[in-house]
Order: sequence, then structure tokens, then C-alpha cells
Amino acid sequence: MAEVVDVRARVLAANEEAAAELRRGFGAAGTLVVNLISSPGSGKTTLLEATVAALAGRLRLGGIEGDIATERDAERLRRLAIPAVQILTGGACHLDARQVRKAVDEAHFPALDLLFVENVGNLICPTAYDLGEDFKVVLLSVTEGDDKPFKYPGIFARAGVAVISKIDLLPHVSFDLDAVRSQILSLNPSATLLLTSARSGEGIGAWCALLEARARAKRKAPF
Amino acid sequence: MAEVVDVRARVLAANEEAAAELRRGFGAAGTLVVNLISSPGSGKTTLLEATVAALAGRLRLGGIEGDIATERDAERLRRLAIPAVQILTGGACHLDARQVRKAVDEAHFPALDLLFVENVGNLICPTAYDLGEDFKVVLLSVTEGDDKPFKYPGIFARAGVAVISKIDLLPHVSFDLDAVRSQILSLNPSATLLLTSARSGEGIGAWCALLEARARAKRKAPF
Repeated sequence: MAEVVDVRARVLAANEEAAAELRRGFGAAGTLVVNLISSPGSGKTTLLEATVAALAGRLRLGGIEGDIATERDAERLRRLAIPAVQILTGGACHLDARQVRKAVDEAHFPALDLLFVENVGNLICPTAYDLGEDFKVVLLSVTEGDDKPFKYPGIFARAGVAVISKIDLLPHVSFDLDAVRSQILSLNPSATLLLTSARSGEGIGAWCALLEARARAKRKAPF
Repeated sequence: MAEVVDVRARVLAANEEAAAELRRGFGAAGTLVVNLISSPGSGKTTLLEATVAALAGRLRLGGIEGDIATERDAERLRRLAIPAVQILTGGACHLDARQVRKAVDEAHFPALDLLFVENVGNLICPTAYDLGEDFKVVLLSVTEGDDKPFKYPGIFARAGVAVISKIDLLPHVSFDLDAVRSQILSLNPSATLLLTSARSGEGIGAWCALLEARARAKRKAPF
């Protein structure tokens, strides 16, 4: 249906405009913005909890949580005493830049070094929507199977960082890490690949070091 | 944007029409049709493999596999010697009834007692698209977390059967089964809830018994 394509093109163009405005604002503020994308239940919020525990004294952190329903994820971050707002998308399968702009306007965040935007749990829809972020992070938990990068190539091609999560469960599942690494790097040769377990703590240090280095680099080089 | 709403309403109306036609055809043929929906990696294809192993001698089975990319899932079913076709959605986050009608027209399936339609891995988009099925099955693996029914209420409200999968991993994750059961039943009091592990075989018998009973009932009472 041509009209569907037309409407989609207009929606994406409006999104690009709002994303560019967000990016200028985040640049001027020196805030690093990370757009976290994965299936439901890959461990985005749990990774953020571990990240906040490690970085809270070192960087000023904030969160925007996208979901279809429930305020649960924002509450999990607020319990860790970081400012967080929840966007309820009302059924939509991804965040868009206008929702994020409205949330940022209304949140009155303090000055932040690092803002996490946790997208709606979905490997497909969020791919095309720029939210003004510095980079996208895709999470894939080892319980989801080792065929996923090639089955969902869009997001793995676009994410600058790929996090293989829940690696503490590797002994209990069938998951060929080399196959996944090779799929991801063939889709995006410049991707940074990290292995993490929020439960055991493995890999959290490397993930936080990456975030801290990029946040400090952005503060020194404002837009 | 009003135009987005208008286009969406027209797309859904066209889908309803195609779904009604499919449902008449499946009714006349006495084929039970099950629409399987879950996040990527909840184990839909693996459950189907275990189901085919258990039911292949008792029912005539077929499969339609929906994915963004790769023929991998249809190949997994064909290796078990059941007829299967792959629909590649070209980026769309769900199957629609017209794609299924086209696939059924082109597949030249033999007479079937039970046709599985495995939707694109997504807990959101497939919810609104009727594919002419007898009922929807939602899968949730225990590794995805026990907050998911309330976070994705649409699909849990609409699915007649909810399968909690990968229960062999329960000792290794934090997952409150009672909380999940209570969320699902509050969203859909008439849902049938099953616990399965394709790896250990637990619960596969009950799942197959449900399918076989419903398939035999449908053959006796054609549309």
C-alpha cells in the first residue's frame, strides 16, 4: 500500500527532525546518551541497575524508560536514587524522538553526564528511530539462542555496542558464542562486543569503563 | 497524527477480511490453526520441534514460519519431514493475514489436521493481527523475567493458551511463577496455562494432548 509507505516516510522525517534537535541539546549539555535496545527480558534494566551501582559516585546519571505499560522500570532506577522518567507508549512498539523530547522537557533533569534511554522491549521496531543518542546498544541474552543476529540484522547492523548478557547461564544453555560474534561482526565490522552478567558481575567493569570513557570524552568536546 | 490512525484502521480492516476468508478455508478443511507469539528466543521453534516429534505419527502437521530474515526456522521444521513454508516480512514486525493467505495458496500443503503459524519474534506487533487462527499461544520463557505479562498486557489478554517455557532453567534464574500465573489470569481469566521444557520434555505431553484434542474436535465439526 503506497499510502502506508508515504505516511511512514513522513513519520520518520518528523522523527529525524526531533532527533537532530535532541542531539544538539545533549551536545550542548555534554551529556552522553545511550539508546538500549533488546527483546523483552534480555536484561536491560538489570544491566542498568548494575551500571548505576558501579558508576553512581563517578558520573551524574539519569534514565528514560520506554514501555507499553507499567511504571516498573523507572521505579527500579529511582530506587537507586537516580532521576528517571517513564514513557508509556500506549501500545507503540518503540520510542520516538518526540516522546523523548517531551520527557526531557518535563523531567527537569539536573545536569547529567550520561543519560540511558531504555527502549521498548523489541528487536525490530526501535531500529529505525533515532532518539538523538550517541550510540545504540543492542543486548542479546545467551538464553535467546545463537541465531538471532542474522534473524534480526537491522539492529545488529546499527548498534555500535553489542552486549551478550546473562553469560552466567552459558553452562545451562546451548549457545555458540563464536557463531554469534561472527554474525555480529559481519553485520557491523566496527561493533564493540562485550560479554556481561549482572548476576555474577562479570564484564560489568569493562562495560562501565567504556561508558565512562565516552562520557568524559563528550564532556570535554561539547557540540 | 490522524492520518496514521486512518491508515492503520484501513490496514486492520483489510487484514480482518483476509483473516475471515482464511478461517472459512481452514474450517472447511478441518485444520486447526495455532498462532504462536513470543519474544525472540522464547523457544517457539524448539517447542514445535518437540511437538512434531511427539505428534507426527498421530496428526498431519504443517508449519508457516514468519521472520524478518533467514529461512532457518522453516528449514528446522522441514528437517523433521513436515511441510513448512517461510514468510520473510521484509522488516515488518508481524505476519498479516494476506501474507498467510498467499503462503497457503502457494504452499500446496497436503490435507492437514494442525497448522502452526509461528509469528515474527515480537510481543507487541502481532497482537492486533488475526491470521484466521483458532487460538493464539503466547510463550514466555522463565529467563525473560516475571514482570512481563503486565508489561505486555495486550498479547497475554488475547492468547487462549500461555506457555511458560524453558522451565528446566528455573533453578538458575529469579522467576516468581505464582506472580506470573496471577498476572496472566487477571488479564485473561479463561487462559490455559502450561509449563514446558523442550529440553527435559516436561509438560510436552500436556501441550500435545491439548493440541490433539482440539484438532480432533475441529475435524469432527467442520465449519
